[in-house]
Amino acid sequence: MISFTCDYTEGAHPDILRRLNETNMMQEPGYGEDSFCMDAREKIREATGCPRADVRFLVGGTQTNATIIDALIRHYEGVIAVETSHINVHEAGAIEFCGHKVIALPAHFGKMDAADLKNYLDGFYADLTWPHMAHPGMVYLSFPTEYGTIYTKRELAAIYGVCREYQLPLFIDGARLGYGLASDAADLSLKDLAQLCDVFYIGGTKVGALCGEAIVFPEGNAPLHFTTITKAHGALLAKGRLLGIQFDTLFTHDLYFRISRHAIDMALRLRNIFTEKGIPLYIDSPTNQQFPILTEQQMQALEGKVLFEVWERLADGRAVTRFATSWATPEEHIQQLTKLFLI
Amino acid sequence: MISFTCDYTEGAHPDILRRLNETNMMQEPGYGEDSFCMDAREKIREATGCPRADVRFLVGGTQTNATIIDALIRHYEGVIAVETSHINVHEAGAIEFCGHKVIALPAHFGKMDAADLKNYLDGFYADLTWPHMAHPGMVYLSFPTEYGTIYTKRELAAIYGVCREYQLPLFIDGARLGYGLASDAADLSLKDLAQLCDVFYIGGTKVGALCGEAIVFPEGNAPLHFTTITKAHGALLAKGRLLGIQFDTLFTHDLYFRISRHAIDMALRLRNIFTEKGIPLYIDSPTNQQFPILTEQQMQALEGKVLFEVWERLADGRAVTRFATSWATPEEHIQQLTKLFLI
Amino acid sequence: MISFTCDYTEGAHPDILRRLNETNMMQEPGYGEDSFCMDAREKIREATGCPRADVRFLVGGTQTNATIIDALIRHYEGVIAVETSHINVHEAGAIEFCGHKVIALPAHFGKMDAADLKNYLDGFYADLTWPHMAHPGMVYLSFPTEYGTIYTKRELAAIYGVCREYQLPLFIDGARLGYGLASDAADLSLKDLAQLCDVFYIGGTKVGALCGEAIVFPEGNAPLHFTTITKAHGALLAKGRLLGIQFDTLFTHDLYFRISRHAIDMALRLRNIFTEKGIPLYIDSPTNQQFPILTEQQMQALEGKVLFEVWERLADGRAVTRFATSWATPEEHIQQLTKLFLI
Amino acid sequence: MISFTCDYTEGAHPDILRRLNETNMMQEPGYGEDSFCMDAREKIREATGCPRADVRFLVGGTQTNATIIDALIRHYEGVIAVETSHINVHEAGAIEFCGHKVIALPAHFGKMDAADLKNYLDGFYADLTWPHMAHPGMVYLSFPTEYGTIYTKRELAAIYGVCREYQLPLFIDGARLGYGLASDAADLSLKDLAQLCDVFYIGGTKVGALCGEAIVFPEGNAPLHFTTITKAHGALLAKGRLLGIQFDTLFTHDLYFRISRHAIDMALRLRNIFTEKGIPLYIDSPTNQQFPILTEQQMQALEGKVLFEVWERLADGRAVTRFATSWATPEEHIQQLTKLFLI
Repeated sequence: MISFTCDYTEGAHPDILRRLNETNMMQEPGYGEDSFCMDAREKIREATGCPRADVRFLVGGTQTNATIIDALIRHYEGVIAVETSHINVHEAGAIEFCGHKVIALPAHFGKMDAADLKNYLDGFYADLTWPHMAHPGMVYLSFPTEYGTIYTKRELAAIYGVCREYQLPLFIDGARLGYGLASDAADLSLKDLAQLCDVFYIGGTKVGALCGEAIVFPEGNAPLHFTTITKAHGALLAKGRLLGIQFDTLFTHDLYFRISRHAIDMALRLRNIFTEKGIPLYIDSPTNQQFPILTEQQMQALEGKVLFEVWERLADGRAVTRFATSWATPEEHIQQLTKLFLI
Repeated sequence: MISFTCDYTEGAHPDILRRLNETNMMQEPGYGEDSFCMDAREKIREATGCPRADVRFLVGGTQTNATIIDALIRHYEGVIAVETSHINVHEAGAIEFCGHKVIALPAHFGKMDAADLKNYLDGFYADLTWPHMAHPGMVYLSFPTEYGTIYTKRELAAIYGVCREYQLPLFIDGARLGYGLASDAADLSLKDLAQLCDVFYIGGTKVGALCGEAIVFPEGNAPLHFTTITKAHGALLAKGRLLGIQFDTLFTHDLYFRISRHAIDMALRLRNIFTEKGIPLYIDSPTNQQFPILTEQQMQALEGKVLFEVWERLADGRAVTRFATSWATPEEHIQQLTKLFLI
Repeated sequence: MISFTCDYTEGAHPDILRRLNETNMMQEPGYGEDSFCMDAREKIREATGCPRADVRFLVGGTQTNATIIDALIRHYEGVIAVETSHINVHEAGAIEFCGHKVIALPAHFGKMDAADLKNYLDGFYADLTWPHMAHPGMVYLSFPTEYGTIYTKRELAAIYGVCREYQLPLFIDGARLGYGLASDAADLSLKDLAQLCDVFYIGGTKVGALCGEAIVFPEGNAPLHFTTITKAHGALLAKGRLLGIQFDTLFTHDLYFRISRHAIDMALRLRNIFTEKGIPLYIDSPTNQQFPILTEQQMQALEGKVLFEVWERLADGRAVTRFATSWATPEEHIQQLTKLFLI
Repeated sequence: MISFTCDYTEGAHPDILRRLNETNMMQEPGYGEDSFCMDAREKIREATGCPRADVRFLVGGTQTNATIIDALIRHYEGVIAVETSHINVHEAGAIEFCGHKVIALPAHFGKMDAADLKNYLDGFYADLTWPHMAHPGMVYLSFPTEYGTIYTKRELAAIYGVCREYQLPLFIDGARLGYGLASDAADLSLKDLAQLCDVFYIGGTKVGALCGEAIVFPEGNAPLHFTTITKAHGALLAKGRLLGIQFDTLFTHDLYFRISRHAIDMALRLRNIFTEKGIPLYIDSPTNQQFPILTEQQMQALEGKVLFEVWERLADGRAVTRFATSWATPEEHIQQLTKLFLI
């Protein structure tokens, strides 16, 4: 049985395991003060073109989202995000748990539209009852989105422009950042992205690491006492070295980008299988998640042989499914899938 | 200048002030243990037909909503409500402030539809990722709604049926309950309503009192330690007598219902003014709030003479406005308005 | 039966009820924007000697404490207070409810000592693990304290000096402020107090009002969007006039100070009864709460005739009790008590 | 330079790294549903003698404490713990962050006394104002404590007896559980401990793992929807395999106990060095943390050669210090330290 259910079915890139082994008995301080975190920070500063960046390592995505959002806004403020965003749907209410409303805008294949954002903000302050409403305190989006789509440089700049007009920080969730930047459809680099927001994170969990997300405050603009905030969220790892070693490895010799590209290559081959078989795609995703619409018969043919996710049942009996590739997807899995579809 | 901006522009019904005067120097215990609260509870038990009811008095609407919701659900649970509901829009995020997501369903002129509710719940548990989502923990609706509309007995029963199917408590916000029940369109009584939910409150602030909302748990089903919960929310009034005296008065000789009916009578006369002048109504509201669509010219004619709320500007330059009557609206205000429109 | 259990057993000062009657049918806007609130604010600015003061009216003490504290500090910060303080003991955890630790210092008959405060703060920052601890974000004290004691001007200045050294705002809970300032032991005025803190409130509930606390930010230094914060706490009263009228009345012709002084006069007479009978006082309280230590026999003699609070049972069978006077205590109650003790 | 600063200065036990390598490319589901977590759960059920146990894996200690506490109690409830406990001092207010008060009892060398607990609870319910106070909702203690001390079976049973009398769940923080159970002073086993509480966790981070804590609900008594609660706390690891593999390894061939014992052996040798040199110990700790009181001269002799923690400066210039051993402490570090003290 092979699996395309998600991009976290395997462990870590072998280089990471090797480094964990090599450094294992070295004595290092805890809580992110170790030499590996220092090195990783320096490499990330270079990769993002942000020499003054404040870089922090947390363990997982939901944790990172909740910590950053809660750190940036006040108790009575909410975070603007699209309806289908991870924070609005799949984080068990972790943002509200910290006291903040998720203010939902319409999603366009998972993406926020700068005009929608501006309309909402104009409308908010035009409404005389606004002091009685949860205030917009920041903007959240993810790159790529839940639907595997990505923002163009122009789209992102437009959103960031609105944010600056309203003095709202923009936060980019990069749980799958590598897959977004490695896409053929991407017209912006990591350095570009770092200039188009106030904080973002580089996802490790889904891109080669056992766990870990690297938060980047491009201008060294982390909120005061961010370590304490992280601790209060239960998000400060004692053996920070585990995160430092992983990101140090991922940002050595462009490993992060190379393995991200591999996932895209595999996704393009998946896509070819589907399109060659005349299988429609629900969304034209340029990243590592593909959304073929399969018939019952097609799904039955795969049963017991290939795992994938069913996103939505359509009225005609077909299903929108998700096939994800990753840094770890072996070519032979693609070949096996090809064979199954040829039958 | 006369005002139709809202239903809380005056003080209290004179009977209430008289009672406050009469009882003023009587020494009574605090925190709702006074004899007036006891009497008021008894009268409300009778008026609601719920001899076992647990009745609590809080000060204001947002406070009452937040306290009840936070008392009924767990930290990881959210409350289902329509998009336009007061808790979702006009309470400054007070529900999220306590850690709970407001799960928004579509609104139909301010009302929730039982089918929408069922669809949402069916869909929630059909989605295999539901453990990763904020759980629906209860259902909230208001009677009347933000748009002045009310549920029929059948509609409410249908919603309550879905709630029971999914074992979710139903909470009815009755900030304007009197105006809903006194409406000609109402086909249910206070006693009926008490049978169709798990908790509701009888609004005092907008119906004759200086402040105060009477929470009713029809079967004595208040959550354990509700007094402590109320205190933790900063919602336990030291001089509970202020609330007890007011509700005791409101539920003596049907005062609550009589003054509610007065507001409806005045609203019907308002409505007649608009319809006779050919002014369209945005919503066919059977309660104390009327929503005429006025032209710029019509609004200018009223400027400096009558206050009302502008809800929404339409593309054609007209505006959806809100005119609210209340227990306190004098007939002469209606007459003055009539004259202004005759010009 | 007469009661000395607390200072909130009666309704409101008759002047307040009269004003409520006189103004009852005047139409006024809600949420503290009414003309009475405006007038009351102006009078409070004058009484406190703070022409730039931002004055807000909330309903009750716990609510006011939670709202101010949550408004002034960040999610990871706590509030420093003495162990016996109201926020640490008798508010059902309302401060922690909002996410903040109450950092408890030793109490000296209910009071905080400036040296203790400084020691704690020095120690906090000397401890290298401080980023792992809840940060001190502000200081809270009450005037008078839970034990009826008050700070001298010098003591308060010393505490405020430490606060400024560490850039921590000082908040004074004045639930019984009138009784503290009217005490013979007080060597500071309302104007002095306003210069020795960053925010305080003037208690109405226990000093002549039906409800209400007037928050004063002496330099107009209310946190941004304080109205929204208040709303999110469920603490924004719709009919703000109820609070405005009461404080306007209390600050007309020095009513607040005159009725506070009456309570002190009655307390001194109470005190005389006890000392003349050789009854020891647990604390030498100069305000409206007196703490006689009564024998079982003495308590039995009062049973069924006088109500008071038992604070603590001593090992020898006696009890520390609390007798509170207030603006409303009639002289005849004192006379009745005198007679009971003469028996 | 060698370090005795804490028990998390190295990576993981080599067996764990080996298993991570061996299993790396196996495809497994996320969120703790992988086969390694299944195996680890089974082994922990056996080791704890709890066949019905519900076992969950979280990442770190503060996170685990906050998640369990928030899951077990209601919003208005607090957790009882000793003053010096980790949750009260060193978790940046993470418990209050979730809305709960830490109710502090006196600590006796880090330990809670059953009599103190009973006194507090008796006193709480004897105080008529208890509905106005944060309710005790559960009891927390750690084994070993912050001071390296451990409870005897009888002491723990006494505490658990009080908990059951008051129907409060008892939660044991076992961040260093192995070191406590392996101590010569321990008169109880893992199986005993599992019978003397309602929930506990087996610490991995400080006992051989890169990260991870295994929560055990001995009777399968996890709160409903604990996975969702974990997610809402940002504590649900996507690649749960990382935790499963580690605990599976630690509970294979008694590795957890063997490496814990090694740390104790090394601590005993440390202790010998100190006592032989006539260096007093601040606390008679039977576990992996030792607290020698060093003179300035002694500390200078170690400077630049050995790292350790300074806990507290004494008035006479000496300092209470902490030296921690762990599963990873090599004998040669002990030998080096011996030599330094011989000089």
